[in-house]
Amino acid sequence: MTEFPKPNRQLRLGMVGGGRGALIGPIHAMGAKLDNRWQVVAGCLSSDPQVARDSGADWFLPSNRIYTTVHEMAEKEAARPDGIDAVAITTPNNTHHEICKTFMAKGIDIICDKPLTNTLDEALDLVEATKKSGLVFGVTHAFAAYPMVRQAKEMIAAGELGRLTLINVEYMQEWKTHDLSVAPTKQSGWRADPARSGPTACTGDIGTHAHHLATFVTGLEMTKLRAELLTAGPPAELDDTVHMMVRYAGDIPGTLMCTQVAPGNGCGLRVRVYGEKAGLEWDQEKPEQLLYARFGELRQVISRGFGEGVREYAARLTRVPREHPEGWIEAWGNLYTELAIAIEARRDGHTIDHSLLQYPTVEDGARGVKFIEAAVESNAAGGAWVDCTLSL
Amino acid sequence: MTEFPKPNRQLRLGMVGGGRGALIGPIHAMGAKLDNRWQVVAGCLSSDPQVARDSGADWFLPSNRIYTTVHEMAEKEAARPDGIDAVAITTPNNTHHEICKTFMAKGIDIICDKPLTNTLDEALDLVEATKKSGLVFGVTHAFAAYPMVRQAKEMIAAGELGRLTLINVEYMQEWKTHDLSVAPTKQSGWRADPARSGPTACTGDIGTHAHHLATFVTGLEMTKLRAELLTAGPPAELDDTVHMMVRYAGDIPGTLMCTQVAPGNGCGLRVRVYGEKAGLEWDQEKPEQLLYARFGELRQVISRGFGEGVREYAARLTRVPREHPEGWIEAWGNLYTELAIAIEARRDGHTIDHSLLQYPTVEDGARGVKFIEAAVESNAAGGAWVDCTLSL
Amino acid sequence: MTEFPKPNRQLRLGMVGGGRGALIGPIHAMGAKLDNRWQVVAGCLSSDPQVARDSGADWFLPSNRIYTTVHEMAEKEAARPDGIDAVAITTPNNTHHEICKTFMAKGIDIICDKPLTNTLDEALDLVEATKKSGLVFGVTHAFAAYPMVRQAKEMIAAGELGRLTLINVEYMQEWKTHDLSVAPTKQSGWRADPARSGPTACTGDIGTHAHHLATFVTGLEMTKLRAELLTAGPPAELDDTVHMMVRYAGDIPGTLMCTQVAPGNGCGLRVRVYGEKAGLEWDQEKPEQLLYARFGELRQVISRGFGEGVREYAARLTRVPREHPEGWIEAWGNLYTELAIAIEARRDGHTIDHSLLQYPTVEDGARGVKFIEAAVESNAAGGAWVDCTLSL
Amino acid sequence: MTEFPKPNRQLRLGMVGGGRGALIGPIHAMGAKLDNRWQVVAGCLSSDPQVARDSGADWFLPSNRIYTTVHEMAEKEAARPDGIDAVAITTPNNTHHEICKTFMAKGIDIICDKPLTNTLDEALDLVEATKKSGLVFGVTHAFAAYPMVRQAKEMIAAGELGRLTLINVEYMQEWKTHDLSVAPTKQSGWRADPARSGPTACTGDIGTHAHHLATFVTGLEMTKLRAELLTAGPPAELDDTVHMMVRYAGDIPGTLMCTQVAPGNGCGLRVRVYGEKAGLEWDQEKPEQLLYARFGELRQVISRGFGEGVREYAARLTRVPREHPEGWIEAWGNLYTELAIAIEARRDGHTIDHSLLQYPTVEDGARGVKFIEAAVESNAAGGAWVDCTLSL
Repeated sequence: MTEFPKPNRQLRLGMVGGGRGALIGPIHAMGAKLDNRWQVVAGCLSSDPQVARDSGADWFLPSNRIYTTVHEMAEKEAARPDGIDAVAITTPNNTHHEICKTFMAKGIDIICDKPLTNTLDEALDLVEATKKSGLVFGVTHAFAAYPMVRQAKEMIAAGELGRLTLINVEYMQEWKTHDLSVAPTKQSGWRADPARSGPTACTGDIGTHAHHLATFVTGLEMTKLRAELLTAGPPAELDDTVHMMVRYAGDIPGTLMCTQVAPGNGCGLRVRVYGEKAGLEWDQEKPEQLLYARFGELRQVISRGFGEGVREYAARLTRVPREHPEGWIEAWGNLYTELAIAIEARRDGHTIDHSLLQYPTVEDGARGVKFIEAAVESNAAGGAWVDCTLSL
Repeated sequence: MTEFPKPNRQLRLGMVGGGRGALIGPIHAMGAKLDNRWQVVAGCLSSDPQVARDSGADWFLPSNRIYTTVHEMAEKEAARPDGIDAVAITTPNNTHHEICKTFMAKGIDIICDKPLTNTLDEALDLVEATKKSGLVFGVTHAFAAYPMVRQAKEMIAAGELGRLTLINVEYMQEWKTHDLSVAPTKQSGWRADPARSGPTACTGDIGTHAHHLATFVTGLEMTKLRAELLTAGPPAELDDTVHMMVRYAGDIPGTLMCTQVAPGNGCGLRVRVYGEKAGLEWDQEKPEQLLYARFGELRQVISRGFGEGVREYAARLTRVPREHPEGWIEAWGNLYTELAIAIEARRDGHTIDHSLLQYPTVEDGARGVKFIEAAVESNAAGGAWVDCTLSL
Repeated sequence: MTEFPKPNRQLRLGMVGGGRGALIGPIHAMGAKLDNRWQVVAGCLSSDPQVARDSGADWFLPSNRIYTTVHEMAEKEAARPDGIDAVAITTPNNTHHEICKTFMAKGIDIICDKPLTNTLDEALDLVEATKKSGLVFGVTHAFAAYPMVRQAKEMIAAGELGRLTLINVEYMQEWKTHDLSVAPTKQSGWRADPARSGPTACTGDIGTHAHHLATFVTGLEMTKLRAELLTAGPPAELDDTVHMMVRYAGDIPGTLMCTQVAPGNGCGLRVRVYGEKAGLEWDQEKPEQLLYARFGELRQVISRGFGEGVREYAARLTRVPREHPEGWIEAWGNLYTELAIAIEARRDGHTIDHSLLQYPTVEDGARGVKFIEAAVESNAAGGAWVDCTLSL
Repeated sequence: MTEFPKPNRQLRLGMVGGGRGALIGPIHAMGAKLDNRWQVVAGCLSSDPQVARDSGADWFLPSNRIYTTVHEMAEKEAARPDGIDAVAITTPNNTHHEICKTFMAKGIDIICDKPLTNTLDEALDLVEATKKSGLVFGVTHAFAAYPMVRQAKEMIAAGELGRLTLINVEYMQEWKTHDLSVAPTKQSGWRADPARSGPTACTGDIGTHAHHLATFVTGLEMTKLRAELLTAGPPAELDDTVHMMVRYAGDIPGTLMCTQVAPGNGCGLRVRVYGEKAGLEWDQEKPEQLLYARFGELRQVISRGFGEGVREYAARLTRVPREHPEGWIEAWGNLYTELAIAIEARRDGHTIDHSLLQYPTVEDGARGVKFIEAAVESNAAGGAWVDCTLSL
């Protein structure tokens, strides 16, 4: 097995967003630190100065590296000899584009939450800016960094399922059935606000994860879709549910189904891929297992771990022995490790084998935005088929 | 708990189809005998006289009650003082209508496999004939007779999920990925032949089960659908996969998804129903359990059995204690027990509480045929919404 | 695959015990009828004449074949040309010996519940009487008739686990934690009474199932044991829990653990067998699956059904396709089918291949009684090792 | 909910052992860093200078804080104003006592792997030294730091199971069935060597985990045991399997069963606790779930997460929402967080609420050593009951 290159140094990470009360910021940080390749050294954790200071203190950031505007942060960090190598952006969707551009202008590599932006124009602008700058730009579809997802991708790429015939993906959640009027969270606020979350809620928030996972695992672009955006739960301005019929490259049919109002489902992201020779199923709630059914043979349960049955791309992302469970933070750790390798190589001018790395790129982020736009368009057209490809 | 009425006598059942090599005929017979309410006394098990005789001998039928035509069987059985009370029809779809009419003409009650017929006209004719004759007419959607399916139905009817918001049903199989050219079965033959299976394959064969299960559990009619009929597996004249977006009464959205080319799925019939207060999931591969998630409470696992948590409609259909597994044959047993009660009551002029009985009727069968026709129409119209209700 | 011989006729079964309110009698009858090889024609369903009559009517027995004493039943049935071929005995343990002897004296084959008797002397007397008479004598360890248990036995016999190294068996139930003073059942009464249940409660009732299952699957006699009989639940005269260290032939170590006071366990009979090359696990609450772990290979899930991976001994006992669940009644059906084959052959003087049949015999029953006696002796001796072999 | 106190500073951790090729050292480090309370700043990662240097470089340790003897490390670190606050000891058992004493002599807090020592005398000496010094001394039974284990402990302490009646614990592994002659690991070497691993192999290595887990969850001391130490797998000087009957305080019976030769088990640590009102089951291979069965109610599945059903002790150790899986590294993170709180408080002279903290102490470690000695003594005495309590 080809190992990941060892790091020459710890990279320095800055955080935007993620202060007290945030869900995803601390996950970025935990993932980043897991493999010793990153340290978190600066942050613009809130636009409220007091919250920013308190949050920065929680993280043991030096007080002069706790910022309240991204412009100040980008400028000052770029000016330091020990300034941040990369910035992690964990703010609402509508702010991503401007923040990214601000840091990119200073030559700082980008790690940005999904969906990438609220408009395709913004997304394409980031793709273009990335190309021009040569910067590394990662999008945090962390689910795709679970070892057993990588295993599935490698098995499919190796032809072990034969020609693919059917691809079903779903992401079922329950959180919007909580009485959010009683205990609103940061998320429940901005995600319900079209100005910040963009033209969709469920489709953009979790639909893009499902879209990325299905296209990542199969290695196939989604080519067209017909969509229904629904509000099945409490009255809301935006969708809480989306149903789609889709096609993948080669006209392979599939379905995509997401909802945030399904009691009993915490984080039910599941993908099923069927081919002429075998099928694979993966469920984020049991992420350590991959169900593998070859025709004419017994069903197999592939467990993450060292040793038998585990492919190279999964083995590289494994830290502990089989059946000592790894989870979601470790998936974030995998993502940050791959980004560290890419960023160190770019900064130090190393040549590395990019085929080892499978982190989602700015192009993947832009495809997610195209997916959202196609969903909105199809829904508006009564469920007509709409092209969702993106030539980049 | 109101118990089922005790039987006064064992009913006499005749079989049409189900001879050597058949899958479903012997299941009818095993289910029928389970609760001591039925004996199998006559049969037209094959149109080939030798196969009919051999099959009849396997079943210990008297030689003078082994028939080779349904007309002879109907006539002679109707003439006997100890003639059959009911007939079970397990032949290909295209023959159902004529066979049903033949026995109905002789006043014999009907138990017929699904889909009811290959055309809606035929189906409506059977509905009409049933109304006029007053005969009992059951359709063998046996999956709906699992105790935990009845439990789900009762809980939903009692409002325990609140207003329903989302209904997802799927039926995933793998058998059409077998190399059927090597070992063709009776089924693989006629189900691939439009002349016998009707305008669809997957949609009619298993789509109707999914349609019935979802409407049965929720107590809601499916009102419209948009469908894609697909051939995702080996080349074939008819569909092996169907994807639908659907609406139920009250404009409740849902999806319906069936395939016969998904390796790793033997009999993956699963229904998920979500409401404003709770959700339920049931999976035919784990039929003894019902997952129940009330919002704000721990998830519960409702097991079939006597005692806590089990509702009346499920308890009545329970034979053995919790965790001594019951299976598919027992579901058939439940169906035959309910049919026996209805048929005995009709024949003996008893009054019974029909609300105890939930076997699928000829009207349910006709709704299944309407469902197939709507699917074909929608598919032909590029996935347009098509009404699938049926006023009866 | 060698098929079971087809029956020439339906055998006639009589029942002793099993009247209204009984748990296990109706299970015998349902299992017996499943494969068309048996009909139930006579019964001594209760010693109370009214209950006997009512219960017999429930079963549609002719009134002149409803008996209130076993002696009358044995005598009259033996005198009829269409008298019973075999009798199923489902009464408390202490009555088994006398009832068996009564029917054996009339040349009637025996199917008897476990434990066989309350003393080893009685058990050995039945072994001797069986030898002398040439009668078929089956003991209803029905769990051993699940297809996946037979599969495990065949795989072990074929050497697929290599030399066995470790055997763990357990049977965990919860029923004695119910408040039995509120709703005493027939069982809870006599099983708590040493005069009827014998020197143990848990050990005799479910310990003998665990003992049989482990020795059946491995093909190895249990050679010695050290036991603790415990009353962990509500105060009681007899054990509700038993813990053992055991040895199997070849000095292979193991454990045996049973309890009836473990909330959350309905029928938790589980056996785990490990060898030099592989391990197998089977759990009665998921009876359709056998977990198979070969060293250096992926874990496999062997499902009951037709086709890949399923061995001959399991395939012969399979009625429905993979993932259409079969359960406990079907296991009883398998047991009764094998007994029908043996009994028909004995009665008609046929020669059959006895290696096809694996029903528990009177010798197995006697080994169970020896197991109980050894447990009592070891417990009394402070947990000393006690031999539990039985040369027959 | 009482939150953990926020840290005032990051503690400095030194590592002993854990260099290249080690399993457990990196797990310590990943766990320590997860919550931002620790940084790893020094190490004696190997006694081989080159390996020590290379391993230290992997961890980005300053070269002057990479040591090759523990004495040098203790001395130099104690002399630095920014010297380590605590040391994590991950070397073979036989070295623990001397290394602990070396660092304790310098006032450095201790985090030591299990079993604590190879003799009870050594263990008691460490207990005494801890008392005298006032140092914090943690033992890394990390399994006990899973949130759902803490949940079980809190529920039992609150009386939700009623008086306990039965406690079964087991730890099943497979690694010793690997052909270790082909690819010996560091562990397989020293764990098979009595000079380093002590008087047992399986009992000391994983038996102590099972012993700690059962006593931790129930809050009950194990009072006596009778043991069989077995070599069921490949020939070996020491045990690979241990079977025990045990008693807990209040004469509550139980079993303890461990093996390292059970194919199909990676890390099968499972505890089942039954009481007069309810039962609980927890399985390390599904660590996010706790099965809870109250008598007369439906079985419940308690999932780790925020919100309903989750108790304070579990909620404090939760980082991510329900169904975003957490695993073993997070359990280590929980352990290190509790140790950080205790160590910071000791060093800074804070008063904290020690009832918040449940890390295993040196006394727990000593009880584990007593457990091993009792097992050896019982086994030598043919399985006699041996007291295993320890008054401290």
